[in-house]
Parts: sequence; C-alpha cells; structure tokens
Amino acid sequence: LWTQMSRGTQSKFFTHLFIYFALGSRYVSKTATKTVSEFEYDAPSMKTAVPGPKSQELLRQLGEIQNVGAIHFFCNYEESRGNYLVDVDGNRMLDVYTQISSIPIGYNHPALIKVMTNPNNVSAFVNRPALGILPPENFPEKLFESLLSIAPSGMNRVQTMACGSCSNENAFKSMFIWYRNKERGYASPSEQEVGTCMINQSPGCPDLSILSFMGAFHGRTMGCLATTHSKAIHKLDIPSFDWPIAPFPKLQYPLEEFVRENAQEEARCLEEVEDLIVKWRQKGKPVAGIVIEPIQAEGGDNHASPDFFIKLRNIARKHGCAFHVDEVQTGGGTTGKFWAHEHWGLDDPADIVSFSKKLLTGGYYHRDELQPDKPYRIFNTWMGDPSKNLFLSEVLNVIRRENLLEEVTRSGKALLQGLYSLQTQYPHILSRARGQGTFCAIDACSDATRDSIMLKARNKGLFMGSCGEKTIRFRPALVFKEYHVHQLLNILNDILAEHK
Amino acid sequence: LWTQMSRGTQSKFFTHLFIYFALGSRYVSKTATKTVSEFEYDAPSMKTAVPGPKSQELLRQLGEIQNVGAIHFFCNYEESRGNYLVDVDGNRMLDVYTQISSIPIGYNHPALIKVMTNPNNVSAFVNRPALGILPPENFPEKLFESLLSIAPSGMNRVQTMACGSCSNENAFKSMFIWYRNKERGYASPSEQEVGTCMINQSPGCPDLSILSFMGAFHGRTMGCLATTHSKAIHKLDIPSFDWPIAPFPKLQYPLEEFVRENAQEEARCLEEVEDLIVKWRQKGKPVAGIVIEPIQAEGGDNHASPDFFIKLRNIARKHGCAFHVDEVQTGGGTTGKFWAHEHWGLDDPADIVSFSKKLLTGGYYHRDELQPDKPYRIFNTWMGDPSKNLFLSEVLNVIRRENLLEEVTRSGKALLQGLYSLQTQYPHILSRARGQGTFCAIDACSDATRDSIMLKARNKGLFMGSCGEKTIRFRPALVFKEYHVHQLLNILNDILAEHK
Repeated sequence: LWTQMSRGTQSKFFTHLFIYFALGSRYVSKTATKTVSEFEYDAPSMKTAVPGPKSQELLRQLGEIQNVGAIHFFCNYEESRGNYLVDVDGNRMLDVYTQISSIPIGYNHPALIKVMTNPNNVSAFVNRPALGILPPENFPEKLFESLLSIAPSGMNRVQTMACGSCSNENAFKSMFIWYRNKERGYASPSEQEVGTCMINQSPGCPDLSILSFMGAFHGRTMGCLATTHSKAIHKLDIPSFDWPIAPFPKLQYPLEEFVRENAQEEARCLEEVEDLIVKWRQKGKPVAGIVIEPIQAEGGDNHASPDFFIKLRNIARKHGCAFHVDEVQTGGGTTGKFWAHEHWGLDDPADIVSFSKKLLTGGYYHRDELQPDKPYRIFNTWMGDPSKNLFLSEVLNVIRRENLLEEVTRSGKALLQGLYSLQTQYPHILSRARGQGTFCAIDACSDATRDSIMLKARNKGLFMGSCGEKTIRFRPALVFKEYHVHQLLNILNDILAEHK
Repeated sequence: LWTQMSRGTQSKFFTHLFIYFALGSRYVSKTATKTVSEFEYDAPSMKTAVPGPKSQELLRQLGEIQNVGAIHFFCNYEESRGNYLVDVDGNRMLDVYTQISSIPIGYNHPALIKVMTNPNNVSAFVNRPALGILPPENFPEKLFESLLSIAPSGMNRVQTMACGSCSNENAFKSMFIWYRNKERGYASPSEQEVGTCMINQSPGCPDLSILSFMGAFHGRTMGCLATTHSKAIHKLDIPSFDWPIAPFPKLQYPLEEFVRENAQEEARCLEEVEDLIVKWRQKGKPVAGIVIEPIQAEGGDNHASPDFFIKLRNIARKHGCAFHVDEVQTGGGTTGKFWAHEHWGLDDPADIVSFSKKLLTGGYYHRDELQPDKPYRIFNTWMGDPSKNLFLSEVLNVIRRENLLEEVTRSGKALLQGLYSLQTQYPHILSRARGQGTFCAIDACSDATRDSIMLKARNKGLFMGSCGEKTIRFRPALVFKEYHVHQLLNILNDILAEHK
C-alpha cells in the first residue's frame, strides 16, 4: 500500500503520524484519574498589552467585512489549554469568561481531542444529517447516553436544536401549541384557524403571550427578544410583541443577612406576576407560558430564592400557564448541580428546561404534554448537530470521572469567600458579592470603574466578563480549581490595591 | 516512543493507521481531476421495503423521547457515498433530496474527510469560540478564502450565523436598524426610544414590517415565521405580526410558451406589492424590507422571471425598503450559478443575501449601509461555527476543481428534458415540469398520487422530496451526473408505467 501512495500522501501520513504520537504522549491521560490540570499551564504569562499588535492587525482586516466593535482580541486556540486562553500575540490569560460561558471542560481537553481523532466519528462530522427526517443509526443511543442521562427529574423527552435562541424559540412555540390544543379541547383546528394562520391573523395565529421578567435575557431572535429585557442595545429598533413583563426581585446580598427584606421583595414580584396574568387575559392576550432564568445572567447576575421559584411554579400551574426554565447559561454544572433549578427542590417539575452553551448543542427537555401533537410543527432542516452530541457525551464522562461538580462546589466556595474578603477590604470599590458554585459576580461602584478593573486585569492575565450595569461576572470552566481561584484573587487584589 | 505507549494506545494507533490506509487507498483522489463518482456506488440496491425492520425498531426507541412522525428511516452515514444514501437495513438509494438540500458534494466526499483528518484543524472543532468577541487567528483569512470568494457582486460584507432561520432573523433585524437609523437621520436614539424598547413598546420597538409573499418559506423562528406562508402546519397556533403579504406569481410552464400570460401575472403581483407598501405605511407599519426567494421551494417550486425580480428590486428602492434575497435553499450552485439571483442580471445589487444549507454555515452578505452602527446589535454567543467554514472552503475547492457548476447545468438539462418526456408520456399523472440547473420539480395530479409515486420510488431505490401541495422536488447534490439522471428517469418511468 505504502508504495502505491503518492509522495504527497506519504508526507501527509508522516505529519499525521507525528501528531498522533505528539497527542499520545502529551495529552492522552493514561489513567482515568488524571485531570486536565496536568496538561495545562501553571499561570498567566503576558508579553504585550491586550490587544497586542497582531490582534490589532487582524482587527483591521476583519473590520473590512464586519463590525468588530465587540472583539477583545484574536486567539490562538491551538496553544490554549485548560483554563488558559492564549492570544495571537503570545499572551496567556486565566480565562474565567470561557467564550461567554460555553467551554465546559477547558481548552483542548484531551478527551475531546480523542473524539476528533476517533475514526468512527468521522462520518458524524462530514455528513450533517437532517435529524428530523433521516437520523443516523446511533442517534437514539447517543441521546440516551448524553442528554437523557442528565435529564432534570420529571423530564424524559428532549429536542435538540442548534443554539440557545433557537431552543427558546421552539420552546415558546411548544407552549403556544400546547396552550391552544388545551383551549380547543384537543379537537382539530377549524377551517378558519387553518385559513387565518396563513396570513398571520387570529384565530389561526392567536394573540397569546409569554410572561418574562425585567432584566431577563432569553436570546435575540424576534420571539426570544420579546422576552429579553437586559439592555436597550439588544432591543432598540426591533418590532416586538405586547407581552407582560414582571419585576424580577432586587435582592440584598449576602442573602443570609437579608432574609426578611428579600422575602418581602419576592412576595411583591410574585403578586405582580399574578396581576399581569389576569390583566393580559382580560386584554385578550392570555399568558401561555412563563419563562425565567434560575439566575439572571446577562441582566446582572440577579438571584432569587428557591421559595420564589417554587411559588412561581405554583402560580403558573394555577393559571394554566406552562413553566419554562431557561438554563442556557446556568446549566451544565457551573452552580454545583448539573441544573441550577435542582437547587430549588421543586415537587412538581418544570414543563420545559432549555439549554445550550456548555452543553455544546442547543435544545430543551419537556414533559410529555408539551410534545407537539403532529410532525413538522417543531422542525427545521438540521434540528441540532450529531457531532455536538458526540462531544457532549465525552464532556459528561469527564465530569463524572473527575467529579467536577464537587470541584465546582469547592472552587466556588473559595471564590465567593475571596470576593467577600475583597469587598470588605475595598468597600468603596466593590459590593454585592454573590454566587452559586463558580457562577459568581461582584459589583463595582460604577460602570467606568468596572470597565477599568477589567482592562487592567486583562493586561495582568485575567480575562473576565461583564453583565448588568456595573457587574463583573465569573464564568470559569468546570475544571477551575482552588489554585486558579487564588491566581484570580491575587491579580484582582493587586489591581484594587493600586486603584485610587 | 512506541514502547512508552500503553497497550490500549498502541491498539488504537493500529486502528487509526488502518483507517488512514483504508481512506488513502479508497477515497483520496490521486490527481486533481478525479471526481467523486469514482468513489461511489454504481446504482441503488434494495434489500427490504423502507423503512425496514431495523429502522422500525429505532423509530420505536426514539419515539419514546421525540415525535418521530416526520422520520423516513434511519441512515448508515458511514456507508453512504456520493449520491447514494444507505439506510440501516442495507438499502442503498439514489438520494435526490440530500438532507433537505443541504449536502453540497455528496456523502463522505474524500475532500471533507481530509479536513477532518488534518491535525491542523483539530482545534477548530474542539474549541468552539464566541466569534463575535474572541475569533481565532485564521478567521479573517478563512472568510476571505471561503464566503468572500463567492460573494454576490456588490457585496463585500458577510456575517456568519448558525442556521438559516438565525440568518434571516438577523437579516431582518439589520433591515429594521438600517431603516430606523435613516428615519432618525443617523442621530442617537432618544431617551424615550431607549426607555420604551426595554418594555417592547413603540417608538423604541417600532411598528415596522417586512413584506413577504404568499407561498414563501423563510424559516420557523417567530420573526421568520411571520414571513413564511407555505403550509398551515408551520404557522398554526403561533402568534405573529401584522405584516403585508403579496401574491407570488402563479406562472404557467414551460415558461417559454406562456411569455405573455406570465408577464401579465407578474405585473399584477408587482402592482399589489406597491399597493401593500403604501397601505402599510398609511397603517403606521412601514415596510422596512422586502424578502423573497429566487425560486419558492417549500411553497411548491414556484418560479418568476428575471424581469419580475428586477422590477421588484426597483420598487424596493423607490419606496426606501431594503431588498433581501433569501438564497438558503437556492444558493450554493444548484441552479447552475453559485447564487440563483445571478441569473437575473441585476444592475443594482440586493441589500442582503442570506444563505445556509449547502453552505454548511448560515449567514448573510450585505451592503455597507446595512452594517449595524454599533457592536452587540447583531450578536449572539457563537455567531456561526469556524469548523463549518473549514468544510466550506474545501467544498468550494471541489466545486472549482471539478467544474461542478457546469456539471449541474448539464445534468439539469438532461433532468428537465427527461421530466418533459415523462409528462408528455403520462399527461394524466404529471404536469408543469420546471427547473433551473438541477433545481427541478414536477407536479402530480393529486397529493395522494404524488405521495404514492414517492413511496414506490423509495422502495425502488430513489429518494425524492416533496413541496407545495402535490409537487415532487429534486434537490440532488452538485455531484449529480447525467448517468444519475438516467437512473432516476428509469425508476420513475417504471413506476408510472405500472401506475393505473
């Protein structure tokens, strides 16, 4: 065979061989107990201010074809490892934002590289199927071993989608379909309904609504955007729906110290929710579903108590609305449980739980009743991507093997304690430290101070995210350990000590 | 090194080695002129009725977690090659539907397998970045060598997205932002606009509309769905917007024989478009953009003349509306040109051209003026997927190297001629054969007859798609050759001859 191969093919084969050995000796863990930390760097290492000259040149190039105003810098993903993101100028940063919270087990995890180099997986990458009509043989098996193995209690149905917005859009559609089927007593739609829906008119396209919360973020496609209320820049100039928006509790932190005040605030918000449901029903735009994040992320890392969510779930049931928990940012283990809403201890499960980001594929779980009655009602060309399910299976193996949820709980405690210390030390700069697992945040005294701290931190090798008006959010990967916490706190402490 | 590897790693290495040689000897073309046909099967080969017993068992399993009513059968993608799709029961079918028109160069094309096995590409698959904030080093270069190398004339800006719906949603948002910026004279938004947009109210969320056409399909998320009017099942029970819907021309085929009648029909539709624009402006819901497919696909493969589209473009300009050409299904070479709207000879380019499916990544091109004025207005976590751009680059190389657009033109002519012959031979069953390139269709005398022909064809090894009420649509890959056309026509002829 070898002699039949062209010179080019031989040469490529050697490259391949070389890399295989390189991977074999460098990344592949020899025992199941080895962890990613053994394959990553020790610490940040900075060579230039960020963005450095190479990033700036690439920004100029990309600026010719796109708005590049949101770009921080360009990355060298090949050289990034675990918790450390390397940029094109050779700067290595501790990354606690992880691609807007979407890298579950760090960069270039050996387990994920194995998925790529496993020849049995090649076909899943090169032949993306239309999953809704022609799924691959292993599709049910892969769903069972990945998404269904981590299904929230009470949910044994799941629909994959391409991204978070698409997941929420289709979750909303499922709630509307469910609501109208109830209303018409599960009878067939009338001729009038079938006719009017084709021209966007009622009753075929009914005036139904989704109740959302001020400060919420559920995505940016037009259905989702009507339930997003975090920042004006997301919504300005885009037509929307007249749907009810309830206040989300504005709690005082630390939660343990303001139990009574916070309970009153939550009661006020719940009362408003019921008022809005009644009011919108009277308006002729009944609430088909309520959508909420377990922790409002983009809106500023706003928490509420388990009691609040349990009562909200009860209100939804009482008024015949579906209850949709959006775990796009909170799901995947970052709060110390696989799903943040598992912290609530709900007796009665949610109706829909949507996900994306750390799960690598979008999608949503739902109760039996929320399954559409007919094919093609919830549908699109790809309906997800089986190659993402392969990666997810492996991510779940790593989470189990390396006990990453315990790790998150441990690192999260250290992180939150550290943030408490910093705000005690620098009360004129920091306040309202809060978090669950490593899903932590702290407020600066102003947006300008927040932005300045973040830029200084970046130049010292700590890359963080922002949210809300003046909040820093921490979204490390699940492989974020206590010693990474200490690196983070040391850098922050240095900056705060210098801050006038 | 070898002796340092564990037994398991050695064994995996041999598997890898074996596969590499297998691929090397079986698929990898030795010269640039070899084509996929040398690596694929000769003909369909059927072992069971479809769906066979294995598919039925998998349907039962998947039915426990999803609505499986739309699933045809389960596939063995590993064994599928070129134009032939193999199912789990070992049936091999000539596939002229190609995953709802989304497989550009056939199954398991050797060029795409090379992308997967190239170690330089591993990182792009395992570290999916947030492209809008932290793009990889090669992102501009890959955009230039893939999407920008095939940009429609007059367009040098492109935004990638995950799928077709997401592309159209964001294209609509771009048109709304552009329209409002014009209206406010490019001044900053007022405080009132900023405040009201947060609660979904005008003027921050203005009452703007998108004009679409009856029979159109632009996707299923709620913004897109308001412009989709192909089938009631897609729209029933989902709230929508009061946006204008114009009639799409109902032409008589073959187009050459009904020039005068068709011109009259198109004039009627264009007049209605202008009336609607005026009417919706008077209603206080001005038309910010017009969206149209070059050939309505899901709606029944409805064509219109270049003259119609040129006049429509002029109407859009005259009334200050953006002109958005949705090439999600028509783009990628299937009409014989890379973009179907290149057949029109537009003097003035469109404002937006959206794509997905055969391009493997979603996205849209746009003119400079349609670029949002600020970052984060058009944004989401992933903004596409660089691993899809890698595949696209390679698909474009294959299209150029194998002259696939010429091939499509040649095969398309043979296919359309064959369909004309069949409808002449079986006028009581078939009519209205039509097409451009291999993007062809033919109507049956009823939906029941259409469905029966399609099922019989499937059992004889020909897998086709349907659209509209009683139409069969042909959506082969770009590697569909004249001898595949003959296979297709022979199978259809056999079925029609038996048809009572």
